[in-house]
Amino acid sequence: MSKKNAFYAQSGGVTAVINASACGVIETARQHSDQIGNVYAGRNGIIGALTEDLIDTNQESDADIAALRHTPSGGFGSCRFKLKSLEDNKREYERLIEVFKAHNIGYFFYNGGGDSADTCYKVSQLSEKMGYPVQAIHVPKTVDNDLPITDNCPGFGSVAKYIATSTLEASFDVRSMAKTSTKIFVIEVMGRHAGWIAAAGALVADQGIPVVTLFPEIEFNQDAFLAKVKANVEEHDFCTIVVSEGCHWPDGRFLAEQGTRDSFGHAQLGGAAPVVANIIKDALGYKFHWAVADYLQRAARHLASKSDVEQAYALGKAGVEYALEGHNSIMPTVVRKSSNPYVWEIGKAPLSEVANVEKFMPRDFISEDGFGITDACREYLYPLIEGEDYPPYEKGMPKYVTLKLVSVTRKLDDFDL
Amino acid sequence: MSKKNAFYAQSGGVTAVINASACGVIETARQHSDQIGNVYAGRNGIIGALTEDLIDTNQESDADIAALRHTPSGGFGSCRFKLKSLEDNKREYERLIEVFKAHNIGYFFYNGGGDSADTCYKVSQLSEKMGYPVQAIHVPKTVDNDLPITDNCPGFGSVAKYIATSTLEASFDVRSMAKTSTKIFVIEVMGRHAGWIAAAGALVADQGIPVVTLFPEIEFNQDAFLAKVKANVEEHDFCTIVVSEGCHWPDGRFLAEQGTRDSFGHAQLGGAAPVVANIIKDALGYKFHWAVADYLQRAARHLASKSDVEQAYALGKAGVEYALEGHNSIMPTVVRKSSNPYVWEIGKAPLSEVANVEKFMPRDFISEDGFGITDACREYLYPLIEGEDYPPYEKGMPKYVTLKLVSVTRKLDDFDL
Repeated sequence: MSKKNAFYAQSGGVTAVINASACGVIETARQHSDQIGNVYAGRNGIIGALTEDLIDTNQESDADIAALRHTPSGGFGSCRFKLKSLEDNKREYERLIEVFKAHNIGYFFYNGGGDSADTCYKVSQLSEKMGYPVQAIHVPKTVDNDLPITDNCPGFGSVAKYIATSTLEASFDVRSMAKTSTKIFVIEVMGRHAGWIAAAGALVADQGIPVVTLFPEIEFNQDAFLAKVKANVEEHDFCTIVVSEGCHWPDGRFLAEQGTRDSFGHAQLGGAAPVVANIIKDALGYKFHWAVADYLQRAARHLASKSDVEQAYALGKAGVEYALEGHNSIMPTVVRKSSNPYVWEIGKAPLSEVANVEKFMPRDFISEDGFGITDACREYLYPLIEGEDYPPYEKGMPKYVTLKLVSVTRKLDDFDL
Repeated sequence: MSKKNAFYAQSGGVTAVINASACGVIETARQHSDQIGNVYAGRNGIIGALTEDLIDTNQESDADIAALRHTPSGGFGSCRFKLKSLEDNKREYERLIEVFKAHNIGYFFYNGGGDSADTCYKVSQLSEKMGYPVQAIHVPKTVDNDLPITDNCPGFGSVAKYIATSTLEASFDVRSMAKTSTKIFVIEVMGRHAGWIAAAGALVADQGIPVVTLFPEIEFNQDAFLAKVKANVEEHDFCTIVVSEGCHWPDGRFLAEQGTRDSFGHAQLGGAAPVVANIIKDALGYKFHWAVADYLQRAARHLASKSDVEQAYALGKAGVEYALEGHNSIMPTVVRKSSNPYVWEIGKAPLSEVANVEKFMPRDFISEDGFGITDACREYLYPLIEGEDYPPYEKGMPKYVTLKLVSVTRKLDDFDL
C-alpha cells in the first residue's frame, strides 16, 4: 500500500480551540510518518480544496504546530461555504476528489459542525463510487454545541467558561453600584437556535447572583419576564439578564429585530441586549448597562476551559488514529462516563447518524418558568468549564502563533466556485 | 495620643482591582493595630458615611480580606454621589465630620477618581477648621486613567490588558473568516473623555493586525476613516476598529447618538460600535460584527494585569503608612523610574494639586493621522499590562469573595441625603 497524504480543513465559525484539534491531527500524523505522508491544509477551509489552494503543513515548525494548541481562531483560515447537495452540484464533489487524487490524498479530516459532517459523509460515499476511495473523518467543532451523539462539541466549553465568568464579574460590578447607579445588567450571548451558551451564564445563580436567562427555546413572555426582573430588584437591588441572540417573540421575530432603526432607516442596528434593556427601562425605570460579547466569547482563548482544550486535541488525534485503523465515514466523539468527577473517553459515531441531526437543550435542562436552568443542566455544564489552560504571554499579551502558510504547487486547472 | 479608628470608602465606578487597594489598606492597618483601631468601611461608599451606615471590617476574616486582592468590583459597595461644593452644602461635610467624631475616626481613606480627591481635600480642610482634624488620604482608582501626577491609575492597566487581548483574539477570529464572511470587526471601549483604553486596543497593530482606532480626543472624520478602513481591507482582507464610547462628530455629538431610535421612538438605544459598523457597511458594503464590552472590561479580574494589582495594593498600603507618618491631604502615587524594564516606586502628591485636574492623552501619543498610537504611547502602555495575576478557580469559575458586611451600631440621628 503506497503512503497516502492527508488533507485537513477548518469549517464555519472558528473557536478558541479548533486549532487545538488541528494540532492534534498534525502532531499525530507526524508521529505516524511511516503511514501518512504530508498533511495538506485547505487555505480558508474547503474552498482551499476546491480551488486547489493547499497549504504545506510540513513547512511549519514543530514549535509552531504545538503553539496552535493555545491559539484561538482558524490558523489555516476557515469559510462559510456549504457544498450543495450531490444532485444539485455533483461537480463540486467530483472536483474535491480530483484534487485529492492529484495530490495523493487518502485521508480527509474535516473539522467543523453539522454542515461539514454532511459534506464529509458525501465525500466518503462518492469517492468510493468514483474509484478513488478517501477515508473521511469528521472532527467535531462548534460553539453551538448542537452535534448529536458526542457529549459536547469542542469550542463550547470555553465559550461557556468565558460567559459564566464574565457574567459573574459584571454582576459583582453591578451589585456594588446598585445603590445609586446601574441596577440592570444585560449580556447578550451567541446561540441563534440553541440556548447552551445562555445556560452557562445562568450558572452565576449558584454564586448568589439574581439572574434571569432568556433562551431561544422559550418564547419571550414580556409580562412574566418583567415580573421576574422586578422581584429580583426588589429583593437584591439589582438583576442580571443573560439573553441569547436567538431569543424571540411568540410570533417568531427575534428580539433584536424589534423595530430598531438607524438614521438611514435600516432595521436591526442593535442586538437583543439593548432591546431587552430598554424594555426594562420603559416598564420599570431602572438604570441599565448592556454588553454584547459577540466574537470576544468564541475567541477568548485566554480563558479556555482545560477540559475543552484537552478534548479538542484528543478528538483531532483520535481522528488520525481511527483513520490509520481503517475507519471511514465516522466522527470521533466524547463519551461521558461520569460527571463528578468528570471522566470521559473517546468514542466514535458513524457520519450517517451525525449528518443533518441537530441537538437542542432538553426541556428538562430549563427551569419550569423558562428563566433559569435545572440541576440536570448544572451537572452537565460544570465539567465542561473545568480547569484553566492559559496561553503563554509576552509583553502583557497572549503569544499566539501566525503560521507561514506556504502553498503547495498546483497541478490542476482553475476551478470556478 | 489616643488610638483612632480609620474610615475607608470606595467611590465611583468600580474596577477589577479597587478591592486590591482595600486589601492593602485593611491588611496594613491590621499590621499596625497598636496605632490604628478599627477600620470602618462605608456601605456603598461615602453615602455610608453620611447616613452613618458603617461596616465593621474587623468582622471579616483575614482570609476574606486577603481574597479581596483577587476579587473585582467594590466589596463594600460604591456609589456615584458627588458632594456639593462647600458653599452649596456645608451641611454634608459637617455631617461627615460628625460621623467621624462619633466613631473616633481619625483617618479617612477615600478610594476613587477625581471627584473623590476633591472631597478628600475638602474634608481635610474643614475638619481642621471644625476642631476635629482628620487625616485625609486619597487612594487613586479609575479605569479612565485621568488623575494627574501619578504614572497611571489602578484599574486602568487591567482594562488595558483585557482590551488589548480581546481585540487581538477577535482580530485573529475575523482574519480567519475574512475570505467568505466578516471583514470588519468593531469593538467599543470605555472612555467618555480620554482615549487611554482605546489606545490599548491599538496595541494589536504590533502583532500585524490592521486596526483603526477612534479616540475621543480626535474629531471623527468620516471620509478619512472610510479611506483608512478600505485600504486595510484591500491589503489585508479585513480590518479591526476600536472605537471609544466618547468618539464624536466635529459638532460634538457622540457617534452613539446618531439618530438611533427604538420602536418607542427613544434615542440612543445602541452604542458607538453598531453606528460605526453601519457607516462602513453603507459606504463600503463589508460584512461586519461588533461587540460592546461595557462592564466586562472593567470587571475582568480573570485577566488582570499583575503590575496593576501590585500597584493597587501598594497604593492602599502606602496610604496607611503615610497616614501613620503624619501625612495629611495627600494621594500616594506611582512614580515611573524606567519603562523597560518597568521600575516604579511609590511617591505622594498634595491633594491641592490633584483635585480638579484631569489628565488627557498627550497629542504625541496619537499618530499624526489620528487613527493609531505612537511609539511614545507604546512605551507608556506596555509596562502597565505586564504580567498575569490569576484568581483561584473553583468548579470552573473564579472564586471571588462576598464579604459579611456587618453593620456598626449607629450613634447619631438620621440624616437626609
